[in-house]
Amino acid sequence: MESPFASLESFVTPTELFYIRNHYPEPSLDAKTWKLQVTGAVKRPLELSLDQVRKLKAGTRPLTLECAGNGRSFVVPKVKGVPWGRGGVSTAEWTGVSLAEVLDQAEVLPGAVDVILVGSDAGDPKKDGQPPGPVPFVRSLPLAKARQDEVMLAYGMNGADLPRSHGYPLRAVVGGWYGMASVKWLKRIVVTKKPYLGFDQTFDYAIWTRETGLPDLTPITDVAIKSSIARPTENEEIPAGKPYRVRGAAWVGNSEVDRVEISTDGGKTWARAVLLGKAIPFCWRLWEYAWTPEKAGHYGLLARATDGRGQTQPLTHDPDRRNYMVNFLRPTSVIVRGA
Amino acid sequence: MESPFASLESFVTPTELFYIRNHYPEPSLDAKTWKLQVTGAVKRPLELSLDQVRKLKAGTRPLTLECAGNGRSFVVPKVKGVPWGRGGVSTAEWTGVSLAEVLDQAEVLPGAVDVILVGSDAGDPKKDGQPPGPVPFVRSLPLAKARQDEVMLAYGMNGADLPRSHGYPLRAVVGGWYGMASVKWLKRIVVTKKPYLGFDQTFDYAIWTRETGLPDLTPITDVAIKSSIARPTENEEIPAGKPYRVRGAAWVGNSEVDRVEISTDGGKTWARAVLLGKAIPFCWRLWEYAWTPEKAGHYGLLARATDGRGQTQPLTHDPDRRNYMVNFLRPTSVIVRGA
Repeated sequence: MESPFASLESFVTPTELFYIRNHYPEPSLDAKTWKLQVTGAVKRPLELSLDQVRKLKAGTRPLTLECAGNGRSFVVPKVKGVPWGRGGVSTAEWTGVSLAEVLDQAEVLPGAVDVILVGSDAGDPKKDGQPPGPVPFVRSLPLAKARQDEVMLAYGMNGADLPRSHGYPLRAVVGGWYGMASVKWLKRIVVTKKPYLGFDQTFDYAIWTRETGLPDLTPITDVAIKSSIARPTENEEIPAGKPYRVRGAAWVGNSEVDRVEISTDGGKTWARAVLLGKAIPFCWRLWEYAWTPEKAGHYGLLARATDGRGQTQPLTHDPDRRNYMVNFLRPTSVIVRGA
Repeated sequence: MESPFASLESFVTPTELFYIRNHYPEPSLDAKTWKLQVTGAVKRPLELSLDQVRKLKAGTRPLTLECAGNGRSFVVPKVKGVPWGRGGVSTAEWTGVSLAEVLDQAEVLPGAVDVILVGSDAGDPKKDGQPPGPVPFVRSLPLAKARQDEVMLAYGMNGADLPRSHGYPLRAVVGGWYGMASVKWLKRIVVTKKPYLGFDQTFDYAIWTRETGLPDLTPITDVAIKSSIARPTENEEIPAGKPYRVRGAAWVGNSEVDRVEISTDGGKTWARAVLLGKAIPFCWRLWEYAWTPEKAGHYGLLARATDGRGQTQPLTHDPDRRNYMVNFLRPTSVIVRGA
């Protein structure tokens, strides 16, 4: 389910408008019997009840999640997968414990490299190449990422218990990474001494990289720099000669949004949008731009974000990214009517 | 193209009967202009002409190759891929240089882990998930395997130049591993400091393993223990009361064939076949068994190989192996006619 991006007004997305992407039917878990197992390359394997998780050092912080397929419907030629428009991105205030804290409790052994997150959602294989099932949704993090502050195990969302559709009773929230890493309905954490190569990070949610000149499969990780226009919406009609508040959000995984620029002439000239509020790590930044179109006509509005490393949005979708990581510049068509 | 397994008589398969499996159209290479590049994590990148390759320390040895999909047509329920019967296995005398020798010439740098073999055959992507092409057929070996004696770069096959369909002018021959590792029409070797995860060892030619209980993708490597019956063929009619020479071959990747047992009563009783010749590393072993069926009727003949580690053939195909590594026990139907 997409978030209604055109209605974007607030930094935090209301829970009922937060986008939803599940891979299998939502499991219905009973928090009384649910347990989180922590196993594998750890000195002290754990089995924690929800109460025990809640007793660990808690924190609340906002983090933005974007589905790795967000914007996929804009890719030409058409690619497979859920045809997301702009609404596969949202921000919530998450409450929970850091994954690092749980790993510290379990005492990770030397030589560990990967932390596998196992969901309670499972299903029969549907896609070519999927392992014989039912198999759970599974994703791993390199230990170094797993230990970062922005990686949480959350039981609260926007001040209430996590709803079922968002992973009740406990989900991972991996700040800075595409949403597939934020495994919902978490039931097991397995620490391993070799990198995990499960379906959900090899066949699915992986892209081609070519370090050696040869295509090499790499699990998707950091969110690419992107700006998205909330208003005007596609083919919105606006009057000439009056100021219009163009607005949207921009975000990036492992950096911060340095600037957002707007073009109303198809990319010939660019003007800076105003970044609203303050930069919060691993969160989107809302922006706005006052535009007074002088003349009636059709316009293609572009918003281009650049991050702190100088990375900006490409002009076209790189096919090596398959049907993921869609952040190319795409104009929003606007119809300006004479006054 | 399958090798006519029923006609198996000699240890070495005549070149014109050696099975052929290509992924893209056969390239037509000119040995005068062809070069082998050795690049990546090496101190001395090389570019060798065929004459230069031929001047390196040469050797000739027999090695058996089996296609990873050999026997695939016997899997129930049906699996995708080229529907191999029994004939995706052959043995040749290969002449060439060891890959280790070439790596030594290039001086592999510390920290190297993988040796990528790049073919000259390339094609447009046809399969779901394949990288944007045209892409060459590419496979890698861990450095430890690449340095083993049984891994050759061959320019000769059964005493003549390598034919075009077998990789002229130079191919890898990776003893003990399924055939996909024996990259034909070799043009480039890239030594890397991280494991290579290309299409031909992730999407294709990979199986599911479950070390952590979770399905994890593993590139196919060592040939599994297998025995195959050449004669009688499927539904062959043979007379009762006369000795019949049941014969075939057995092979295994990283061990040796310890014994082959035959059952003529559907697996209730087993008798040892005679292993012919002597054990040659990474080669099949021909075997025979003198069978005198007493009574007319339908028989299901089974041949079961066991290797030096005690590994034997399973009763069914493990779906985690997808459409590869088919070595389950499968009866050959024989009709015995009254005398």
